[in-house]
Amino acid sequence: MFETAELGRKISRADFKEQSAVLRTELLKVQQELRRERRFQVVIVFGGVDGAGKSETANTLNDWMDPRGISTHAFGIPTEDERERPEYWRYWRTLPPKGDIAIYLSAWYSRPLLDRVYGRSDLAGYDRDLNRIATFEKGLVDDGTLILKFWMHLGKRGQKKRLDALAKDPLTRWRVTEHEKENWKMYDQFEVASDRLIHKTNMDGAAWRLVEGEDHNYRTLTVAKVVCEALQAKLNAARPAQRRPSVISAGIGSGAVNVLNHLDMKQKLAKKEYRIQLEKYQGRLNLLTLEARRSGLSTIFVFEGADAAGKGGAIRRLVSALDAYQYKVIPIAAPSDEEKARHYLWRFWRHLPRAGRVTLFDRSWYGRVLVERVEGFATESEWKRAYAEIDDFEEQLVEGGAVLIKFWIHITKDEQLRRFKSRENTPYKRWKITDEDWRNREKWEQYEEAVDEMVSRTSTGVAPWTLVEGNDKRFARIKVLSTACHFLEATLKGRQKGADGKK
Amino acid sequence: MFETAELGRKISRADFKEQSAVLRTELLKVQQELRRERRFQVVIVFGGVDGAGKSETANTLNDWMDPRGISTHAFGIPTEDERERPEYWRYWRTLPPKGDIAIYLSAWYSRPLLDRVYGRSDLAGYDRDLNRIATFEKGLVDDGTLILKFWMHLGKRGQKKRLDALAKDPLTRWRVTEHEKENWKMYDQFEVASDRLIHKTNMDGAAWRLVEGEDHNYRTLTVAKVVCEALQAKLNAARPAQRRPSVISAGIGSGAVNVLNHLDMKQKLAKKEYRIQLEKYQGRLNLLTLEARRSGLSTIFVFEGADAAGKGGAIRRLVSALDAYQYKVIPIAAPSDEEKARHYLWRFWRHLPRAGRVTLFDRSWYGRVLVERVEGFATESEWKRAYAEIDDFEEQLVEGGAVLIKFWIHITKDEQLRRFKSRENTPYKRWKITDEDWRNREKWEQYEEAVDEMVSRTSTGVAPWTLVEGNDKRFARIKVLSTACHFLEATLKGRQKGADGKK
Repeated sequence: MFETAELGRKISRADFKEQSAVLRTELLKVQQELRRERRFQVVIVFGGVDGAGKSETANTLNDWMDPRGISTHAFGIPTEDERERPEYWRYWRTLPPKGDIAIYLSAWYSRPLLDRVYGRSDLAGYDRDLNRIATFEKGLVDDGTLILKFWMHLGKRGQKKRLDALAKDPLTRWRVTEHEKENWKMYDQFEVASDRLIHKTNMDGAAWRLVEGEDHNYRTLTVAKVVCEALQAKLNAARPAQRRPSVISAGIGSGAVNVLNHLDMKQKLAKKEYRIQLEKYQGRLNLLTLEARRSGLSTIFVFEGADAAGKGGAIRRLVSALDAYQYKVIPIAAPSDEEKARHYLWRFWRHLPRAGRVTLFDRSWYGRVLVERVEGFATESEWKRAYAEIDDFEEQLVEGGAVLIKFWIHITKDEQLRRFKSRENTPYKRWKITDEDWRNREKWEQYEEAVDEMVSRTSTGVAPWTLVEGNDKRFARIKVLSTACHFLEATLKGRQKGADGKK
Repeated sequence: MFETAELGRKISRADFKEQSAVLRTELLKVQQELRRERRFQVVIVFGGVDGAGKSETANTLNDWMDPRGISTHAFGIPTEDERERPEYWRYWRTLPPKGDIAIYLSAWYSRPLLDRVYGRSDLAGYDRDLNRIATFEKGLVDDGTLILKFWMHLGKRGQKKRLDALAKDPLTRWRVTEHEKENWKMYDQFEVASDRLIHKTNMDGAAWRLVEGEDHNYRTLTVAKVVCEALQAKLNAARPAQRRPSVISAGIGSGAVNVLNHLDMKQKLAKKEYRIQLEKYQGRLNLLTLEARRSGLSTIFVFEGADAAGKGGAIRRLVSALDAYQYKVIPIAAPSDEEKARHYLWRFWRHLPRAGRVTLFDRSWYGRVLVERVEGFATESEWKRAYAEIDDFEEQLVEGGAVLIKFWIHITKDEQLRRFKSRENTPYKRWKITDEDWRNREKWEQYEEAVDEMVSRTSTGVAPWTLVEGNDKRFARIKVLSTACHFLEATLKGRQKGADGKK
């Protein structure tokens, strides 16, 4: 495949001067339009071998465009803060808001490629890494991000020539590190692994462009032209149609809901028994979280449920078993403007805990397939693809060393009415009930259908849902606490076994 | 001083039960009002000796209040990301938005106190640390934050009793660490240092409350009551009057401006000479930033100047000498809603670079004493106290290992008019000129006065302003580049000397 990028293409100095002058003006113009409209963001990725001009080309793009709307990201050895989170945390954090351009040097491609070349991963592991990349980029593309990927190529001889030239000049000798020399010796392995990488991550909307890297002028103009034209094309594309509420399928209220129907909503717990169990499980949970802290296991709780289902009360009983410095409650309401300008999962990535801590999401990323679906804040294609996006996100959380515990607290429609009325009649609870709650209630059946689909589709092996019968608050709270203990115990035991097995 | 907190005060179980029930309801009520109005935020600090109930009381407050609006922060050994920034970076990052409550366990008090007790700092160094704390807290108070500080006290004997009791019980024995035992042996030193700490950081709006920590019931109720009453009082306080544009002093246009009048605005650079100098300084700057990178020196540039003064062009010439992965340009326009909910310096703290990187602020924290002053977005007392706040902020940047280079690019009123008109007549520049630019121009004299005062008051030893005569763009760009080289060279040389001196 790489032969097509070893043809010795060159552009003369005079041609470069002429063409670059036009291109720079064009680039600035489209960038301004991008910034003014703020309809989408641009992610530019440079991959390829050392010396093929990745960072030089990034420099040139930065130089040619308005520095206020463009940034470049390179990643070294992960810092402590980064090591304690899933691998992609540091990439998510740097994603640009709509209207901006971010250039990535190797970034998420670097670790998988080096691991494969130096034999630290087998072919199956490499493919898993490449799939993760494809899923990540597809998510951004689906969200409207323009992704442009350039594979900067330099043949084996071209690379040797470059290293020799650098080594000869005393001013540049320091640039030829042991690391670069070693990489050159692995050239053939790099080529095989790169070939696979390009094929597996070459997708609609995130295709690789192979660029011959030997001649500075040629590679610079090639890249700049692609960037300019792709930006222009996307800016010219018709704006997407106004978002409309999804069409609700016909099955509503006709018994289509399955999962929730099987709950025994009559389960109760007497006050005395509740007190005994509360103390028991809170004590156990406290010890378990201390053990989790020591072993670096993060815990992430998700609480979902209808208005007045008792999420807040359950969370309060749970956190009062924890030491205040080791947990955070993240209430999810309307997104801030910084959050609105990015992929909907960005706001959750930014709150991921360090190793050993506990994070409780009071409502969560599931809003996408619940409120956003029912109220039409997300288009049908947006919420439909969210199931797979969430699945991938949660897989990364668990792989990154967290246990994920998800609760749907369920109440019946009658019970909700009773609680709404009681809130209205209690002075210090009245603030808790709003017009919006009454409006949501009118869509009860649509919400039930959404919940049903959510639970069926996102109750995965690594992150199953726990349905909590919530009509009796005491019963619900104890079920939440005991489930939390159960999951933590099982995960800690599994880790212990894994550690023992390694000895 | 501490005798008053060794009186053996206790509250019986029955009294506690009765009083806490009332208090909890009250606390929830005021918290809801705080969250609804979002007029200010609350910072609660717990200081004091081990075992006096700091984290237990934080736990209780968390337990009693709505977890969605309260968070607790404890800090261990700084992480790599934290070590590479000024000491206060990690505290600024956690400051709550308006409407929220954040509890801090020891936090910014911990390092100074331990350093003093264990002899790592002398008295002068300790006082400097305490002054920094006082300045930090004063800034928050001035910004409207409610700060409540509790010094949890336990006498020498009380502490010994507690340690012995913990050590006797097999279930709690692990809590008595070597570290705690060692701290106890230093009790007298702790008392002396704490006494000084309390006196030096006891201020209007951020006063210490000494709390007797031996009895759980007494200390819990005492703290909760203070929190409840202080919150209630501040919520009841009359809302501040509507912000009005500051009254402009009488001196305008009457020759009151001094600094800018002394600039020789006729300075020019011919095209040929410009080319030579540009290449020379860009090359030098590139090498200097590589050296800075290796030695962990961060560089922070500030660019200020009237509309059309040429900030963008100067920045572009500067960054094109840098490698794209090591710098970031931070354009400062209107704050996001997350930024608006916090102290105006918060948005700058969050962008501070890691060691060895370069950050360029295109407009900056000086907006407070320029546009916010002239347009009346800040009250007179806000912009007047900003000089001292900025001074302290910049001192921390430099202490944290950065070199700070500040440019005011100056143009004359006539030259601005010429540039505005030229922009209007050039199709691809037209987007750069807005109605707002014309409106700002009408206030030229007021801006000049503000600039004059800014330069005089914030040109400090650690961070002097460089005034750039900007009527000739070529001259201005070279002055920016050569100044940047000069500052970097001097700082790197100073560091080298310092390092040599240590050998």
